[in-house]
Amino acid sequence: MDKKKNSVVTSAAAASVAAQPLENADALIDSVETFIFDCDGVIWKGDSLIEGVPETLELLRAKGKRLVFVTNNSTKSRKQYGKKFETLGLSVNEEEIFASSFAAAAYLQSIDFPKDKKIYVIGEEGILIELELAGFSYLGGPEDGGKKIELKPGYLMEHDKDVGAVVVGFDRYFNYYKVQYGTLCVRENPGCLFLATNRDAVTHLTDAQEWAGGGSMVGALVGSTQREPLVVGKPSTFMMDYLANKFGITKSQICMVGDRLDTDILFGQNGGCKTLLVLSGVTSLSMLQNPNNSIQPDFYTNKISDFLSLKAANV
Amino acid sequence: MDKKKNSVVTSAAAASVAAQPLENADALIDSVETFIFDCDGVIWKGDSLIEGVPETLELLRAKGKRLVFVTNNSTKSRKQYGKKFETLGLSVNEEEIFASSFAAAAYLQSIDFPKDKKIYVIGEEGILIELELAGFSYLGGPEDGGKKIELKPGYLMEHDKDVGAVVVGFDRYFNYYKVQYGTLCVRENPGCLFLATNRDAVTHLTDAQEWAGGGSMVGALVGSTQREPLVVGKPSTFMMDYLANKFGITKSQICMVGDRLDTDILFGQNGGCKTLLVLSGVTSLSMLQNPNNSIQPDFYTNKISDFLSLKAANV
Repeated sequence: MDKKKNSVVTSAAAASVAAQPLENADALIDSVETFIFDCDGVIWKGDSLIEGVPETLELLRAKGKRLVFVTNNSTKSRKQYGKKFETLGLSVNEEEIFASSFAAAAYLQSIDFPKDKKIYVIGEEGILIELELAGFSYLGGPEDGGKKIELKPGYLMEHDKDVGAVVVGFDRYFNYYKVQYGTLCVRENPGCLFLATNRDAVTHLTDAQEWAGGGSMVGALVGSTQREPLVVGKPSTFMMDYLANKFGITKSQICMVGDRLDTDILFGQNGGCKTLLVLSGVTSLSMLQNPNNSIQPDFYTNKISDFLSLKAANV
Repeated sequence: MDKKKNSVVTSAAAASVAAQPLENADALIDSVETFIFDCDGVIWKGDSLIEGVPETLELLRAKGKRLVFVTNNSTKSRKQYGKKFETLGLSVNEEEIFASSFAAAAYLQSIDFPKDKKIYVIGEEGILIELELAGFSYLGGPEDGGKKIELKPGYLMEHDKDVGAVVVGFDRYFNYYKVQYGTLCVRENPGCLFLATNRDAVTHLTDAQEWAGGGSMVGALVGSTQREPLVVGKPSTFMMDYLANKFGITKSQICMVGDRLDTDILFGQNGGCKTLLVLSGVTSLSMLQNPNNSIQPDFYTNKISDFLSLKAANV
């Protein structure tokens, strides 16, 4: 096993520096100001908390680290998403949650989107709540879920010329009315922005199967507008830029912790952050060390609670 | 005007051979076995027939030419689409109409799609009618327009494991149920095909504005499956291959007649056909001769009825 591991590490190293097992957690913790955690596979798995998570978060807080929990889920606001943490017995502040619903509102604030302009939303309640908290006016969302178009000869769908941005996220009440309304705004309102909370192919609406994700709503608008959206959720690096700007930290002081190579780790690397892969989710050690895998995090470990034991071992 | 025209032609010729004005219609007609006509801008404009069309079609028929009328509209069957011709006083046989609804069924026939497999349809009645005429079993279509998903914990959408192809076309009753059903078939049924009738960004449901087209329904499935569809309508060259195979003609014996450079003319060129641009639709002479335009048809003329006068002039 060791022999195989070493030879694979050598071969992977030809493409990029092979990931190192995390041996000195304290050194990593000391070099970092902010930890960004992916949730599923890192903090919880389905509906169960991963072992040792509360103590690990406590340790990091005690050391004065900023914690950020990131999710591409845009259907809930940060506050609503916080209830999932509460249910699992974790005490997490809503300011620590970076949901893509909030990311859309934060992006619009970051560019000083004019308050007299409106935002058309294809998506669910989370986006509306975050836009409202940020002081923006919006239309669309769940309210347009039951609307139909009448195709009488000469029929024209009127649209609001004051819409300056269309925000698209996962929407289980997606329909043609919304596609056409969003398309008209993007195509006909000069300078209208096209933002996507995420382009995830699939999402986990229920544990029983994978469900078509926000990528399908975004794909529909890309198809009709022939424009590419600005994505604010993973794997866009907007969040890293936002954190770096807001808290005046350099991105190398951020460590992205996740269980997926092609989303979380690549996301961290694209953002110029340190990266830690945990093997408590979808990626196994053999997947990491497969010669065909070219994405190598800085470090890997079994689960975040290794921060506790690896610390002890080095004291 | 002539001076400007000549200099532009010279400059365009640097990139590709500049289009020639059609001067000898007889020579073109004699060299061709089949004419493929785009409809809007060539045969009619909105609800009005373009001048001289009936006499021109009559001339071509008298000369034994095969006529094909092509439309990316998949909402109607060939028979239903034929009514538009009838309304305008044109006598066109349904076998002469190549709607993308028919193209989907013809493609499945061309690959001997197994008759014991089923086809899931995101689209309207035209696709269902053509699939039925071709002897295929389908599910989905308008019937799924009112269906909703229930997101109880543990809820799973069952899907038919016998679906071997998903066909996506324009669908004004598009919803999340259909996106998820089609996505499950493409992702989970081994070898399941993903066909698109067309990827048009916009379509003309009413004359009053442009409407989000089949490209939006297809884009949604691309977003959730991360697969690219096989497109059977324009600009795919399936139709030319189909005609060439079915009637044993070479593609250089086909002439594509259209009013759009980047769809019709490119479509004809990709298929290895002769191409004729008519200026009765969206493209003007100055657009054709603009140095930035790199798409040059073999010939251009004002309207298809020039076949009559150019013939007379050369007798």
